[in-house]
Amino acid sequence: MKNVIVGQSGGPTAVINSSLLGVYRTAKERGADNVYGMVHGIKGLIDGKVVNLSEVLTCDLDMDLLKRTPSSFLGSCRYKLPEPKEDGNLYKKIFAFLDKLQISAFLYIGGNDSMDTIKKLSDYAEQTKSEIKFIGVPKTIDNDLAVTDHTPGYGSAAKYIAATVKEIIRDGLVYDYPVVSIVEIMGRNAGWLTAAASLAGGEDCEGVDGIYLPERVFDVDKFVADVGSLLKANRSVVIAVSEGVKIADGRYVCELAEHVDYVDAFGHKQLAGTARYLAGRVACKYGVKTRAIELSSLQRCASHIMSRVDMTEAYNAGGAAVKAAFEGRSGQVITLKRVSDDPYMCITEPAPVGLIANIEKKVPPEWITEDGRGVTSELKHYIFPLIQAEIEPLWVDGLPRHIRLMK
Amino acid sequence: MKNVIVGQSGGPTAVINSSLLGVYRTAKERGADNVYGMVHGIKGLIDGKVVNLSEVLTCDLDMDLLKRTPSSFLGSCRYKLPEPKEDGNLYKKIFAFLDKLQISAFLYIGGNDSMDTIKKLSDYAEQTKSEIKFIGVPKTIDNDLAVTDHTPGYGSAAKYIAATVKEIIRDGLVYDYPVVSIVEIMGRNAGWLTAAASLAGGEDCEGVDGIYLPERVFDVDKFVADVGSLLKANRSVVIAVSEGVKIADGRYVCELAEHVDYVDAFGHKQLAGTARYLAGRVACKYGVKTRAIELSSLQRCASHIMSRVDMTEAYNAGGAAVKAAFEGRSGQVITLKRVSDDPYMCITEPAPVGLIANIEKKVPPEWITEDGRGVTSELKHYIFPLIQAEIEPLWVDGLPRHIRLMK
Repeated sequence: MKNVIVGQSGGPTAVINSSLLGVYRTAKERGADNVYGMVHGIKGLIDGKVVNLSEVLTCDLDMDLLKRTPSSFLGSCRYKLPEPKEDGNLYKKIFAFLDKLQISAFLYIGGNDSMDTIKKLSDYAEQTKSEIKFIGVPKTIDNDLAVTDHTPGYGSAAKYIAATVKEIIRDGLVYDYPVVSIVEIMGRNAGWLTAAASLAGGEDCEGVDGIYLPERVFDVDKFVADVGSLLKANRSVVIAVSEGVKIADGRYVCELAEHVDYVDAFGHKQLAGTARYLAGRVACKYGVKTRAIELSSLQRCASHIMSRVDMTEAYNAGGAAVKAAFEGRSGQVITLKRVSDDPYMCITEPAPVGLIANIEKKVPPEWITEDGRGVTSELKHYIFPLIQAEIEPLWVDGLPRHIRLMK
Repeated sequence: MKNVIVGQSGGPTAVINSSLLGVYRTAKERGADNVYGMVHGIKGLIDGKVVNLSEVLTCDLDMDLLKRTPSSFLGSCRYKLPEPKEDGNLYKKIFAFLDKLQISAFLYIGGNDSMDTIKKLSDYAEQTKSEIKFIGVPKTIDNDLAVTDHTPGYGSAAKYIAATVKEIIRDGLVYDYPVVSIVEIMGRNAGWLTAAASLAGGEDCEGVDGIYLPERVFDVDKFVADVGSLLKANRSVVIAVSEGVKIADGRYVCELAEHVDYVDAFGHKQLAGTARYLAGRVACKYGVKTRAIELSSLQRCASHIMSRVDMTEAYNAGGAAVKAAFEGRSGQVITLKRVSDDPYMCITEPAPVGLIANIEKKVPPEWITEDGRGVTSELKHYIFPLIQAEIEPLWVDGLPRHIRLMK
């Protein structure tokens, strides 16, 4: 028996299900008897929650819907596997269950935390002479993984952001009085998503008037003054700002608001509110109409506007992971390697998972303009190919059709 | 000479430019020599700001882009024309300018405030024996105009809302722990837009768990308790709430927050914050993860996901306005009349503009469920045909292409 198991972990992307499909189809084509899905990732696996994917993806239409369905089809988790020495029984339980299912390859689609899971399991397998192969498939809208040129999921989020910001820019110019629109974009520590707002500008669009990334220290007073200068020359000012911008003392900008936003059940401070705080400061100072626009979770689930380049790469990364496992590799992650810029060409390449696990890749300083209010053309050229081409929703009764695991 | 002038007024919709195109093409086909556009509506006209549309729409491609461009191509204004007795000189100025341009028909695309403009100008024309005809073209995402079955602009906003909420519902189920998502939707006094969230539910989607319209008094404690009940049976709870919900004493829910959000330059309180306030209340009470999602201005400018039914009706309303004016009518507005539900068929029909001006149409009480937490199937059947069919963006370099007046 050659069985495969696959899981999805961490925050979803618009194309995380394309990677799942890449795993499923490639495994089947390469002779897997059964392809199981972990329901809610490794956490579900520990609880014995798996599905046989052939039972839930019953026809080609299901698979085409899967590519177009937002969120993680199998469900996800945020779970840090303990070290074997901390909980050896847990590892025994996991491997016993995998052996029971006659698993030969374990694929995990996730970000840097999930790659840590792959590393621990593959190390354990090596120590215990298990023959199960463990391969990671990268995924994150944040694009903050090391080694890989970019991450599946980033291109679609970037396309959504650029398209939406472009619409906001047109909308901002509708009246004959000044309007300041501040668009808050995801990215706690890395500014890749916020940088995508730069692509809105072009022949038919004025572009944004400022881009503020978390890689640079944020100065609120300077920001307000910058907007003031922009208002002298422009009727509409549109600013893209990362949710994660911090002032010199290390506090997030959204923490400066007088009211205390609640802390969530996990003790994480709710970050949303940066744009709102800044809009309030601008409104008070200049008496102009302001708008705070949070793109919120729409950035990661807007599967009605996906990048086909991104989708294809996500699918290929899933397929390459199966291939790597079937060829006997383990403890590796599939990376994307850009082999050419003109024309854009990108291949998959396995790399040791330890190079990616728990590491965050930020926007390099040389891709941020000296004044800290924009990004360079190099950064725009880097993102540009990743948002290209489209994949249409399957429209049913006026809405994009999805597929779900539980009916 | 048979010249026509057209203006756009009030907040934009995704299809307001389709109405503009309907006016332009129909006027040209019916023999207009020149079709002028008011830049920023009647306010721009008063300042002598007009463009000859033939000079800015130079080819068929321009016109196809116009249909797909968000915001108001000509620019808009929020301006209440004074009565002739308050400022007779203003009327003389306007009519002198229209006569100079040899205008025979004046078309104005807007909401109930804009219909007031049409009423005043046509009344004045009648009194002063001017032969200029004044016709209104309805437009608003809010769907709050009287007489007309629905308004051009509503269907596309409803489609965007239903599609987005559907994505949010999938996203909310991604983890194995409880999440409450509160989606704040436009509509200060009328709940039509919020009601559109009901269309998300169907074969492939659980639908929203609650819909709260401004037509009903809102009880915050009851709301929090309702969410608590929902959390017992559902891992993910998704609620659609109008930005305009008010408690029994008449205050908006967002005014209950301890911090004071700023008042804008026009003295309007900033309403955004209802979802955030409610999410905070829920998080404090139940310790669950909550998300406040404001659809903000994306609801009115998301031209990348338009309803083709809406677009066609918007175009037809523009064309019908020209026809009515050329046939000698004045002081009228084009309404949409649903002549059949199965199959859906809708025609245009002129009506006296006084029946629409300054009147707000709310969701009828019988279309809201008794418990005030949802809408009836009649309301869903009413909206359903309005979100049907699609019009693809013209994708250039990975983004929807637009057209703008000023290069």
